[in-house]
Amino acid sequence: MTEAWPDIAGRMRGGTHVLPVRVYFEDTDFGGVVYHANYLKFCERGRSDWLRLLGIHHHRLTDLVFVVRHMTCDFRKPARIDDLLEVETKLVAMAGARIELAQEVRREGETLFAAAVTVALVDGEGRLRRIPLSISASFK
Amino acid sequence: MTEAWPDIAGRMRGGTHVLPVRVYFEDTDFGGVVYHANYLKFCERGRSDWLRLLGIHHHRLTDLVFVVRHMTCDFRKPARIDDLLEVETKLVAMAGARIELAQEVRREGETLFAAAVTVALVDGEGRLRRIPLSISASFK
Amino acid sequence: MTEAWPDIAGRMRGGTHVLPVRVYFEDTDFGGVVYHANYLKFCERGRSDWLRLLGIHHHRLTDLVFVVRHMTCDFRKPARIDDLLEVETKLVAMAGARIELAQEVRREGETLFAAAVTVALVDGEGRLRRIPLSISASFK
Amino acid sequence: MTEAWPDIAGRMRGGTHVLPVRVYFEDTDFGGVVYHANYLKFCERGRSDWLRLLGIHHHRLTDLVFVVRHMTCDFRKPARIDDLLEVETKLVAMAGARIELAQEVRREGETLFAAAVTVALVDGEGRLRRIPLSISASFK
Repeated sequence: MTEAWPDIAGRMRGGTHVLPVRVYFEDTDFGGVVYHANYLKFCERGRSDWLRLLGIHHHRLTDLVFVVRHMTCDFRKPARIDDLLEVETKLVAMAGARIELAQEVRREGETLFAAAVTVALVDGEGRLRRIPLSISASFK
Repeated sequence: MTEAWPDIAGRMRGGTHVLPVRVYFEDTDFGGVVYHANYLKFCERGRSDWLRLLGIHHHRLTDLVFVVRHMTCDFRKPARIDDLLEVETKLVAMAGARIELAQEVRREGETLFAAAVTVALVDGEGRLRRIPLSISASFK
Repeated sequence: MTEAWPDIAGRMRGGTHVLPVRVYFEDTDFGGVVYHANYLKFCERGRSDWLRLLGIHHHRLTDLVFVVRHMTCDFRKPARIDDLLEVETKLVAMAGARIELAQEVRREGETLFAAAVTVALVDGEGRLRRIPLSISASFK
Repeated sequence: MTEAWPDIAGRMRGGTHVLPVRVYFEDTDFGGVVYHANYLKFCERGRSDWLRLLGIHHHRLTDLVFVVRHMTCDFRKPARIDDLLEVETKLVAMAGARIELAQEVRREGETLFAAAVTVALVDGEGRLRRIPLSISASFK
């Protein structure tokens, strides 16, 4: 299946992961633009596919899961129905259980939304867990 | 907390459960009306609170969960931002692992959306499980 | 942009439109599977991209919009996080203001969700409007 | 209808608006907890009902709409299915076209999510518009 849709998880451009995202009805609100919380969904799709391209699948993490701990969000310009957006994801820093990422949602090169995101690796009880070498090595 | 918000799970009116639902930005799309799939969310809230008022909590079901197997949906009139809707839920039939419900979403008494819903009780592996007497008795 | 992501609107296979859909965190619920109402979102994405490939853009319809009037839904098997699904959309019938479609959500060829969908073309006041020849001709 | 459901838009407690929010299936993800972007939905419901209780309805704003420009989000502890949460909304500052708010999502008095939110009043073209006296007076 993945062979049939080669770009489905986006692509790496230099050190930046790029995922295309189409704006559908479900993403808009009655103001005619993308509902603000949905940019966070787009960013989460970008992070998931960035990890996927690095070979880090949710099921490979077994009991561990990356959760968002902090997010600073700039809503700069509205996206609209039918827009083809690109979500860019870049690693900024990594230490212990935490990863810092810079993410942007762009349309034709223009930044519509920008976020600084801190995610942490936690176990089933929500306790912080140091990122294993097998994973941190993939980020290099 | 529940005492502070007495109507939070709706009310029984005769044999029908009624849950108020406010339409927020998140529920609308750029057409200016409620996005069609969100009526299914409203209905699921109604079913959950109907079970809640009957004393059937998700955590009481432990390994078992009610899942939707079939749904027939009539989208009659659009709901809009700020509308105060009522979700009505009525038991139609019950047999084995299955429950049939009639649900409507209304505004000032007018039906905007109507659905016939079949839910089934399944275990963690997705196998059908006969509805236990402790639960079916609550429906009478 | 569209050239950079050639498959972003799916592909026609014979008379059937096929759109790949990845399952992300946002699509799942605490039961570990795709939340039932989200299959309707996947189907709406399929319909939008089927129209897009036929050259019928939302903005080309100006005041007119296709809305869902009726839907019969079979939830057969659960989709899970990381699944790569395919949404299939096929025209069944067309008359006046109405179009009937058969849609399926599949994983590795297996049908997880099937729906019969009736959409209607309406104007800004919600009145039915006969599908113009320029559009109905595209469906042939 | 509003008389039938007196608490549907929450209540003022001192200068703070409090809105109860139940966690349903739709709000959770396969990690078993509330999906992170949904706290932003809960906060937007809180802001809408805070404005509603102040007598500022979306339709009263005619061409004007409040949009989120900036948001800093702390995800502290996870909320779970069936939780009854309270969204607290407090005015922090107001100047020109902008309002700053402090919002928290709490469970039994414990803060699960905290956000600093900047919203701005814009017209149909997205241009900043000074908050009219009729509205700013309501905030006092």
